[in-house]
Amino acid sequence: MQGRTLVELIAAKRDGARLDPTEIARLVQALMTGELADYQMAAWLMAVFFRGLDDEETVALTDAMLRSGRVLDLDGVSGIKVDKHSTGGVGDKVSIALAPLVAACGVPVPMVSGRGLGHTGGTLDKLEAIPGFRTQLAAEDFARIVREVGCCMIGQTAEIAPADKRIYALRDVTATVECIPLIVASILSKKLAEGIDALVLDVKVGRGAFMKDISSARALAEAIVRVGTRAGKRVVALLTDMQAPLGVAVGNAVETREALDLLLGEGPSDLLECTLCLGANMLCLGGAANDEAEARVKLADAIASGRAVRTAERMIEAQGGDPGVVADRARVPVAPEEIVIESPRDGFVVQVDALVIGLAAVAMGAGRTRADQAVDHGVGIFVDKKRGSQVARGEPLARLRVRAGSDTGTIEERVLSAFDLADTAAPPCPLVLDRIDVSSTSGHDCG
Amino acid sequence: MQGRTLVELIAAKRDGARLDPTEIARLVQALMTGELADYQMAAWLMAVFFRGLDDEETVALTDAMLRSGRVLDLDGVSGIKVDKHSTGGVGDKVSIALAPLVAACGVPVPMVSGRGLGHTGGTLDKLEAIPGFRTQLAAEDFARIVREVGCCMIGQTAEIAPADKRIYALRDVTATVECIPLIVASILSKKLAEGIDALVLDVKVGRGAFMKDISSARALAEAIVRVGTRAGKRVVALLTDMQAPLGVAVGNAVETREALDLLLGEGPSDLLECTLCLGANMLCLGGAANDEAEARVKLADAIASGRAVRTAERMIEAQGGDPGVVADRARVPVAPEEIVIESPRDGFVVQVDALVIGLAAVAMGAGRTRADQAVDHGVGIFVDKKRGSQVARGEPLARLRVRAGSDTGTIEERVLSAFDLADTAAPPCPLVLDRIDVSSTSGHDCG
Repeated sequence: MQGRTLVELIAAKRDGARLDPTEIARLVQALMTGELADYQMAAWLMAVFFRGLDDEETVALTDAMLRSGRVLDLDGVSGIKVDKHSTGGVGDKVSIALAPLVAACGVPVPMVSGRGLGHTGGTLDKLEAIPGFRTQLAAEDFARIVREVGCCMIGQTAEIAPADKRIYALRDVTATVECIPLIVASILSKKLAEGIDALVLDVKVGRGAFMKDISSARALAEAIVRVGTRAGKRVVALLTDMQAPLGVAVGNAVETREALDLLLGEGPSDLLECTLCLGANMLCLGGAANDEAEARVKLADAIASGRAVRTAERMIEAQGGDPGVVADRARVPVAPEEIVIESPRDGFVVQVDALVIGLAAVAMGAGRTRADQAVDHGVGIFVDKKRGSQVARGEPLARLRVRAGSDTGTIEERVLSAFDLADTAAPPCPLVLDRIDVSSTSGHDCG
Repeated sequence: MQGRTLVELIAAKRDGARLDPTEIARLVQALMTGELADYQMAAWLMAVFFRGLDDEETVALTDAMLRSGRVLDLDGVSGIKVDKHSTGGVGDKVSIALAPLVAACGVPVPMVSGRGLGHTGGTLDKLEAIPGFRTQLAAEDFARIVREVGCCMIGQTAEIAPADKRIYALRDVTATVECIPLIVASILSKKLAEGIDALVLDVKVGRGAFMKDISSARALAEAIVRVGTRAGKRVVALLTDMQAPLGVAVGNAVETREALDLLLGEGPSDLLECTLCLGANMLCLGGAANDEAEARVKLADAIASGRAVRTAERMIEAQGGDPGVVADRARVPVAPEEIVIESPRDGFVVQVDALVIGLAAVAMGAGRTRADQAVDHGVGIFVDKKRGSQVARGEPLARLRVRAGSDTGTIEERVLSAFDLADTAAPPCPLVLDRIDVSSTSGHDCG
């Protein structure tokens, strides 16, 4: 049977019809061979924006994008391989601490990360602040390091889900990014290509996140859990707050230093809590703990015993980086000049706007507005006073780390404007807002 | 002010917002300069498919596409210049008779026509069945012939609304053709580029038409009248039947011959009625008659006096064609072999399916399925028995004109299958279903 033509497949989705898995696969294959033009895929993507994809279609799209490239072979790695993916936020350096921490508890973590774009940072940019650290490795080296060290953190290579790369680039310039089934397929196709068995998803919610409200965040979380499960993986999603930056440091080197602090039992409490909560879910999925309480004991022990830090050192060394940065964080170079942003009044910090801080960091050069821009790894912002902090007039709210001679007048204003100060303290906000798993009824234990 | 970026304009339409006329113009200009990629325009077109354009946006799109090229200068032609546009059907050779007929009544007709695609034929293909006839003329020659002869019929040149050409090509392969504001802007941008003052639109309705039902046909007619009026032109639309082929001949040469018959007072009655009704509206818009009755008298006189035929001869000669074809239609070459399709029973013809006949003609080579295909001008179908005809078993229902040695087995079956025969005659269907003008209340007189 000939079946529908490619144009008929666009028209069918436009008219709200379902496509067969084979038809979805045909669209993706045709895009890669050139039989389907970019403008035809763009029209189909916009039709999907309006009409959606059901779970079976989303699985088919995920699978087709996954199969457009190579699935990394981690058969030589024993154990249940678990990764974590964050939808991105400001100050989110969790992965850098989490991967070695979870690996130190015996769960292998093969992690393919991304770069920063817009106000959100990217793990690769942060890791590259470590002198010598390489994020572009051959698939064989990636598998070997996961096997030998327990974790490895690389960037999406040309081999991994090239159709996702192509389609994402189209979505980025055709106003079709904000579409849950397309987001789900994009995330999962890359993650499944890593050869993982299970995934913990951190869906950030709030001003500094891609998902601004809890209902859309929950919809994304539920979709990715459903579709990931249909694709044969164990998937759990946490919804976590991203109204304010996570932790204190925002930038590249400053965030990497803060992540290393965490492995030494130091670092901000919100960052620690986020890391432990995600890590506990990874240990449960990876079979290293029976419930979240047991998992947290193991994670705490990995930090206290120094095993987490040693795993990080071994991973950094295996990826060409200077392992001495762990013992001496000053070896991760940070811009020399410090500018203090003082509080204009006495009072309480009610909120720190993650979006404003994130955009200020981009303006300082820590991030990029276009995918082809370089970043300055050394500049950054310390958000010293966080939600709930009492502050006196003239006390530092934040500090900027900048290059000598930088014109930072407007940056200072922007960072100050991110702080909402009041006479009375606001009640604390929870960091973890919800947990979604395949039953969606098991609450906060590991199910 | 910088205003919204091009991607923001796609997102705005996606989210149902209005775009300013300047923003619409910016999109079209950016497409032509390459600043906006085809895939971005495709995404915008699909968003328009879902969200629509209001009249002001449609006027702006029309204007931007019009201004992407050259507006033909017909200032040297005195009088109110009126054109007719048909949305396309099977056997619709009206233009070939209508242009010289109306011109013979003193109303100048500058006409830019199209080619056949899919089951619908195109005026240019039919005209090119006349030996020597050229449809690609320089703008100056077009203006001169309209001035000297009263009418001229050419194809869309690269100079005329190139943005429409570009956008139409995109729509054709991205399932965004069936969208009223885009259709309106496409038709009007080309027609306004001719330098016309008024336009009569023939919106075909039914199986053989682009618009299958009367409500969508009426929506298109009303939109084009509203938008054309806002663009400063007088526009009237007729809704005419296209369940069955118009006239008897379907093909290129055979249709051209039939159109010439009409100018001699011969030819099928439905074709004559359609031509006179459109022509009467053109004379009214062009100031050559005060109402449809007066206009019909003038049209009949132009035929009876031979002025219509002489105008056709002069136009054909001016465009490089053999004017002898008018007196001797055999000089328009038709394929030599004739195959008769006989009626399998006694009865009445209840319907002849225009779509089936149109597709059979394409399969014979008279039309094309892709824009870059050549057509065979000589092949064609005569639909001898039309709706309401009584027929005896073995009597010819239709005749095919084919090349010697053609394998026409399946064509014969298809043409026969187009005929719906019954024991009793069905009541006659009206040819003109409605008339829409700016008041939409003036009924069938010229208002």
